Amino acid sequence: MDINLSSVGTVRSTRHEPTDDFWDMEEVYLELTDEFSEESLYGLSDFSHLELIFFMDKVNAKNIVTNARHPRNRLDWPLVGIFAQRGKNRPNQLGLTVCKILKIEGKKIFVSGLDAVDATPILDIKPYAREFGPRGKIVQPEWMSQLMKDYWQKS
Amino acid sequence: MDINLSSVGTVRSTRHEPTDDFWDMEEVYLELTDEFSEESLYGLSDFSHLELIFFMDKVNAKNIVTNARHPRNRLDWPLVGIFAQRGKNRPNQLGLTVCKILKIEGKKIFVSGLDAVDATPILDIKPYAREFGPRGKIVQPEWMSQLMKDYWQKS
Repeated sequence: MDINLSSVGTVRSTRHEPTDDFWDMEEVYLELTDEFSEESLYGLSDFSHLELIFFMDKVNAKNIVTNARHPRNRLDWPLVGIFAQRGKNRPNQLGLTVCKILKIEGKKIFVSGLDAVDATPILDIKPYAREFGPRGKIVQPEWMSQLMKDYWQKS
Repeated sequence: MDINLSSVGTVRSTRHEPTDDFWDMEEVYLELTDEFSEESLYGLSDFSHLELIFFMDKVNAKNIVTNARHPRNRLDWPLVGIFAQRGKNRPNQLGLTVCKILKIEGKKIFVSGLDAVDATPILDIKPYAREFGPRGKIVQPEWMSQLMKDYWQKS
């Protein structure tokens, strides 16, 4: 089934290249397209966090993996399926991140904690609700914890 | 910017109509399309939860809200922007939910805690990593907590 979407906004970030780590170093805001007014953000400042779905348009289609790969090509980490990792070279090139809302000015949302480069098209913005977090005990493999070690670090 | 995606799988659920509450009553599995093999799920069973991005194809385009509305049309709740609520009649019709992984059998992932109806196209499956959860204190308005009161209940 083919699905046609349009961007609802654009990421503006001090990072221009999709390098792996240290994403908290960047200054970022989200800007809505001309189609939307400030009204579409009414009440968003009552939430501490939002969930952003974005389209990683700089991914080269010929690099997209549909089966399994070693995360970050690290042979000391297991061979895992593309749907068991969050690497960018994935079917549909969708990114998904929970960001902290810093302030909202007109049609701009200033956030921290976003791992998307400048000019990335935004597909949706949802407020983060506690009840939409994971329920029950969270379990993840050791390679994922290792991979995330410096992901959000500032340097 | 126009973005063309393809479904990577389909939701199979005992719920066929998008009613508001009691989603934990349903039995659900996710089935990958023919394009993918079991390999794309290698290692997913080492995670307790996954994040699912899906396309709410039953939304009627003429009901899509681009400005603000009262959630569930409850006039006793505030008028909030479409990007400050999670209602389904939204630009791009994307749904996003963290589900618990129950078991994986071949190309089927059995989950609990999904609020998508049967036959919904799946756009992405990502493993849930603790480091991708919200950082810092979570704040949300009272109307959201009220709205979610029976959302996941079993009856």
